[in-house]
Amino acid sequence: MVPHLATALNGPINELEARILDSMPAIERWFRLEWMEHTPPFYTAVDVRNAGFKLAPVETDLYPDGWNHLTDEMLPLAVQAAMAAIEKICPEAKNLLVIPERTGSVSHLENVARLGRIFSLAGLNVRYGSLDPSLKESRTFELPDGDALCVEPLLRTQRRLGLKNFDPCTILLNNRLSKGVPGVVEDLHEQYVLPPLHGSDSVRRRVHHHQAYEEVAKKFAKLLGMDPWLIHPMYGACTLEPGAGREDVLRTAVEAVMSKVRRKYKEYGINEKPFVVIKEDGLGGEGLPPCVVRDAREMDEAFWARLGRHLDPAATCGLLVQEGVPTHERINDAVAEPVVYMMDRYVVGGFYRIHTEPEGVGAKGASYVPLAFAKSHHLPKSGARPGASAPNRFYMYGVIGRLAMLAASYELEATDPNAEVYD
Amino acid sequence: MVPHLATALNGPINELEARILDSMPAIERWFRLEWMEHTPPFYTAVDVRNAGFKLAPVETDLYPDGWNHLTDEMLPLAVQAAMAAIEKICPEAKNLLVIPERTGSVSHLENVARLGRIFSLAGLNVRYGSLDPSLKESRTFELPDGDALCVEPLLRTQRRLGLKNFDPCTILLNNRLSKGVPGVVEDLHEQYVLPPLHGSDSVRRRVHHHQAYEEVAKKFAKLLGMDPWLIHPMYGACTLEPGAGREDVLRTAVEAVMSKVRRKYKEYGINEKPFVVIKEDGLGGEGLPPCVVRDAREMDEAFWARLGRHLDPAATCGLLVQEGVPTHERINDAVAEPVVYMMDRYVVGGFYRIHTEPEGVGAKGASYVPLAFAKSHHLPKSGARPGASAPNRFYMYGVIGRLAMLAASYELEATDPNAEVYD
Repeated sequence: MVPHLATALNGPINELEARILDSMPAIERWFRLEWMEHTPPFYTAVDVRNAGFKLAPVETDLYPDGWNHLTDEMLPLAVQAAMAAIEKICPEAKNLLVIPERTGSVSHLENVARLGRIFSLAGLNVRYGSLDPSLKESRTFELPDGDALCVEPLLRTQRRLGLKNFDPCTILLNNRLSKGVPGVVEDLHEQYVLPPLHGSDSVRRRVHHHQAYEEVAKKFAKLLGMDPWLIHPMYGACTLEPGAGREDVLRTAVEAVMSKVRRKYKEYGINEKPFVVIKEDGLGGEGLPPCVVRDAREMDEAFWARLGRHLDPAATCGLLVQEGVPTHERINDAVAEPVVYMMDRYVVGGFYRIHTEPEGVGAKGASYVPLAFAKSHHLPKSGARPGASAPNRFYMYGVIGRLAMLAASYELEATDPNAEVYD
Repeated sequence: MVPHLATALNGPINELEARILDSMPAIERWFRLEWMEHTPPFYTAVDVRNAGFKLAPVETDLYPDGWNHLTDEMLPLAVQAAMAAIEKICPEAKNLLVIPERTGSVSHLENVARLGRIFSLAGLNVRYGSLDPSLKESRTFELPDGDALCVEPLLRTQRRLGLKNFDPCTILLNNRLSKGVPGVVEDLHEQYVLPPLHGSDSVRRRVHHHQAYEEVAKKFAKLLGMDPWLIHPMYGACTLEPGAGREDVLRTAVEAVMSKVRRKYKEYGINEKPFVVIKEDGLGGEGLPPCVVRDAREMDEAFWARLGRHLDPAATCGLLVQEGVPTHERINDAVAEPVVYMMDRYVVGGFYRIHTEPEGVGAKGASYVPLAFAKSHHLPKSGARPGASAPNRFYMYGVIGRLAMLAASYELEATDPNAEVYD
């Protein structure tokens, strides 16, 4: 089952699909050349929104959860990509230490088990270590599919991190470290820590990613001879200082993005109501759920009261104002949001978040049902009518996912505290 | 449907399967380290024989035909592997010229079309050029699946080979050049010619491959702590000179291999009748179909008369005497011979040749029906009963296929006329 586009305004997206398919050799070559200059993140998941009139990534996750939602058919691709990734990073690798979230979530553990299976099948000894300092002995979690996952206490020596009788050459974080980077994973110069700690949620800023994505989208749009807006969500940023005037600062930022979006909607004859999504700039904060604003007049006292429940008015707070990209993909009447999964530079699968509530904007904890991509993104069919072919749509999503991954690569280079600077 | 082993003597193979599965991390690491030192052939197909008591490759094809026999489900793996291969050889690649056999075989053309599809999906512009000098204009072949394949005349300039309005950076031979290397593909120093010309059938010698495979099998057997014979077909070579004494030379070679095989059968308590297969050493000759001998006494006048129909008694002729590895895989009562397909270092699929005649020894033109591997070789299950799991059997075949591919890599290095020699 593939979601249908619940909008009559699908001309631009069908044109984009046709253009992307026609330009496939140029696109693949462009990615190859970019990957000669830049290192892809180890693994990435990208949330994509298809509005019919535009298609854009809205979140780029460097610690992707949800590997358990991909189909078994896609597992071999992930295994092969993992082989390529290991070979590049550490061909001598024997042992991989995976660090999951400190969580009782069964779904997260299923995801970690799946990830472990991928790396076992790629030929590594995989074990799991917990950041929870209260875990003193290994603990085995039974999983619904009958498997079990054994999580062990970490053992840190001065120079290395491991487990009892397990000295890994690579440490893979499947933990977004949103509360900060714990000392136990710092200063490990003899082992590979993936993704790098400066990509963790406590440090990463959405604005940096959007800046990098804007650059990538412009390059790519130039390659295809099209308006970058068709694949790029516009954005603005602002900083709320404690005290008076916070309302004006945010209102100005919202108005600025909103008026740019309105101009674009007018240019393309889009009759929908534009909106923006306000998010915290830092990814670590669990405070503010993404907050939709359709009109600056909505930012009234009730709005601020709501915001005040999540943001401390006495603290400085960076915000991102992101163009809202509506989701017009539907399974029956439910909103379907695609997520594209990548390992190294390869798209290895994806799934739809099928929202059980109508307005899904990627809110954390949104209740959803995963639906794996039914067809391979690797097998687009030239000649198929735009919009009618699932593999073609998935190929297009894979291209957008890879653009966001490339942006993450730019972002990690720009924010690397150990980068050598050539003046 | 997966073939069953039609032999009670499957203990050793089940033990081998269990050992290979248990050693998976060590095996994958060993391959990674080998590929740091050696370059895999661009693509390879390996014929494997499963006798229940041993498992061995019997032919390693550097110009694999038959890509059309793999399932569609395996196509994404081939595409991803092709992406990795292109990236390594020529990341700037735009255009790929594929040179098929000069043949009217529809099956070969379907195979070429499938190969072209893989490289198109990996992002290359693919066109097809014919070595047939009588082809003066492009010619389109209709294929049974409704597709068409356009083959064009080659255009050679002093330094480059291409087609009209098509200048490729890479030339891929899907033509074994068994009649010799035509001048039109020689001295192309600005373009990549794959596989290298010294791997073509007119130049390649089976003995070189067997020498290399023997080295690989010994290393691998040492890694796993087992007898290399379990994965290695013993062999001998001889040269028939014109004139008298040819019979004795061949008989001696056959006896030598046969007595080694008999000793091994005795050691392992195998009650089957051993046999050898006589093949021409050079791969180019179309003369001699593989010739089975079960007893030197069979080499009587009738045998020599049969041989004389294929081998010129007035010419010097190199022969390989290979240990016969019986095939005990059966679908119903038909013999099933697995073929493993690889692209770059990755196993991307395989199929069984289901023989319609009982005694199949890989004879050219043998009538067979292809049956694609039903399950992925990438998803072995630890804990499954040896011999009972199709993915485990395919993983094991993938390991053996890769060993033969690695041997081909050693072989191509050893026979490279342009290799730099360090004394």
